[in-house]
Amino acid sequence: MKTNAASAVNAIIPHLTPAKESGTGVAPANIALCKYWGKRNEELKLPLTGSLSISLGPLGSTTTIAFSDQDQFVLGDSEQELDSKAATRLFGFLDNFRPPGTYFQVTSTNTIPMAAGLASSASAFAATVKALNELFEWNLDTKGLSILARLGSGSASRSIEHGFVEWFAGSQEDGSDSYAEKIDLEWPEFRIGILTLSSEKKSIGSSQGMKRTMETSALYNSWPQEVNRALPLIRTAITEKNFPMLGSAAEQNALSMHATMISSWPPILYWKPETITALHQVQLLRAEGIEVYATMDAGPNVKLIFLEEQEALISEAFPDLQIVAPFQPIPKSST
Amino acid sequence: MKTNAASAVNAIIPHLTPAKESGTGVAPANIALCKYWGKRNEELKLPLTGSLSISLGPLGSTTTIAFSDQDQFVLGDSEQELDSKAATRLFGFLDNFRPPGTYFQVTSTNTIPMAAGLASSASAFAATVKALNELFEWNLDTKGLSILARLGSGSASRSIEHGFVEWFAGSQEDGSDSYAEKIDLEWPEFRIGILTLSSEKKSIGSSQGMKRTMETSALYNSWPQEVNRALPLIRTAITEKNFPMLGSAAEQNALSMHATMISSWPPILYWKPETITALHQVQLLRAEGIEVYATMDAGPNVKLIFLEEQEALISEAFPDLQIVAPFQPIPKSST
Repeated sequence: MKTNAASAVNAIIPHLTPAKESGTGVAPANIALCKYWGKRNEELKLPLTGSLSISLGPLGSTTTIAFSDQDQFVLGDSEQELDSKAATRLFGFLDNFRPPGTYFQVTSTNTIPMAAGLASSASAFAATVKALNELFEWNLDTKGLSILARLGSGSASRSIEHGFVEWFAGSQEDGSDSYAEKIDLEWPEFRIGILTLSSEKKSIGSSQGMKRTMETSALYNSWPQEVNRALPLIRTAITEKNFPMLGSAAEQNALSMHATMISSWPPILYWKPETITALHQVQLLRAEGIEVYATMDAGPNVKLIFLEEQEALISEAFPDLQIVAPFQPIPKSST
Repeated sequence: MKTNAASAVNAIIPHLTPAKESGTGVAPANIALCKYWGKRNEELKLPLTGSLSISLGPLGSTTTIAFSDQDQFVLGDSEQELDSKAATRLFGFLDNFRPPGTYFQVTSTNTIPMAAGLASSASAFAATVKALNELFEWNLDTKGLSILARLGSGSASRSIEHGFVEWFAGSQEDGSDSYAEKIDLEWPEFRIGILTLSSEKKSIGSSQGMKRTMETSALYNSWPQEVNRALPLIRTAITEKNFPMLGSAAEQNALSMHATMISSWPPILYWKPETITALHQVQLLRAEGIEVYATMDAGPNVKLIFLEEQEALISEAFPDLQIVAPFQPIPKSST
């Protein structure tokens, strides 16, 4: 039998008996250092290739789910229409976990600056799954949580844990081996800089963008080779704390992902003029001996990675940079 | 025996006996619609893939070569130092054609706007070969001229003739089947618009750029597949005068070439902020139903292709556009 999302969920959760009145989950956003671009299974959100990310420390989502007399979704300060895109996607996912005749009241807050074009769906679905785990008292391990989160949004599989996280592509048709695992290593000096260049809505969403790339870009045929190049380098660089090795592998991988988009038809050109200016500036800083590397997701904004010792110089070059220290203790006010 | 440039030349030319005091050649510049990016043999300038171009009508080079008592190279109004990059490259090529104890006086003019970043080496080497053909009265056919021009600069093989020209990759080690041939078709309404966005010197030359791409970009492994996609489409589109088919295949191919550069390390990012603005504007014009497509070479500038009927609208959108009509009679003053 072909696995669908519902049967993939049922293979993991032990029961659907309400255990508490409400459950709460907290999950960080993440930025991939080796990117996820392209699915081998759309419904199960199984990726064609593995990927590896760093969490964004205090930036993420907190979600509380309570049983109620009707479905309701409050995001930040505002109640969402149930037929909105966000609510439809959320309840479409929650339908997999709904005991007969029950309703969910979902309250969610994000500490991710929405304008930065950072994906909030990763932390949102990870926090949702953690909230469900508490609501039903499943006591799932991180592998189970990661698989459930993946069924909501692929990259959410990498948002169950903090720090460096690798999501295995897996090879099983039912997705049972496609989950993310934390790399047991702290790198306190690691910094991420978020450069918000444009807050315009993306011209094409990630899922549609991946699909168009897979269908129309001849260069995408070599994307698995690019991941096979970058992923082992990034793993080794993390283990050895070799920052230039990590940075160069990550920047090349991010630009290669955009290259597959640019070679699609119609071309997926998320870049803005400011994107080019920032990418050139990063190259110039490196030419001056400053170890800073760029990464980008499906949008025009540029994220920088660097170490604490370069923070002052890089802040000077990019005055509007929002800096995140993923291995520093998270301030109470953010969680 | 491995073929070098000298033996490749000797396989084509019938003799090196001076026949005239001087010879003159005229050749057009060309813009590839299906790009050449990557050599299978550096010395013989044999490409990994085929390519197809359109000539730039009146824009090109005129070169006169005369026997003299010393080597001399006059480009436009200015005599070039013999140890300059341009003179070294030119005389390095001419050494293959030098009867013992002779010297060449070379006078060359370009009608190519240098600031536009259009390659002048293609028309320059094609004109040089035509001048030699006259100087020695070889009466070579266009195939022989194309091979000789290729040995000076790969894309010069496509500048022997006007109009649409295809350069065959060939498979022979000596390059004897890697030459360009004119497609016997006129398309009087065809227009090329040259958008000069930056006249800065390129950060990396084409030959070095190709080399870096081949050595470092995993996506380049699929470049031959991209050419196999685009080249037959472009051929068919020309034969059927199907402009949207031609334009879309050419734009995707040009952006795919840049995608291979962007995925190299260090990244080859010829694009400027203005490049992105122009590419987005082309997409917007198409969304409004105006059939205009972009192509780009190894540099930041964008070239547009469109048909005569759209010329007014496109000139309005791009007021600084220099428009070339490759199939219109060439004004006497330009040749």
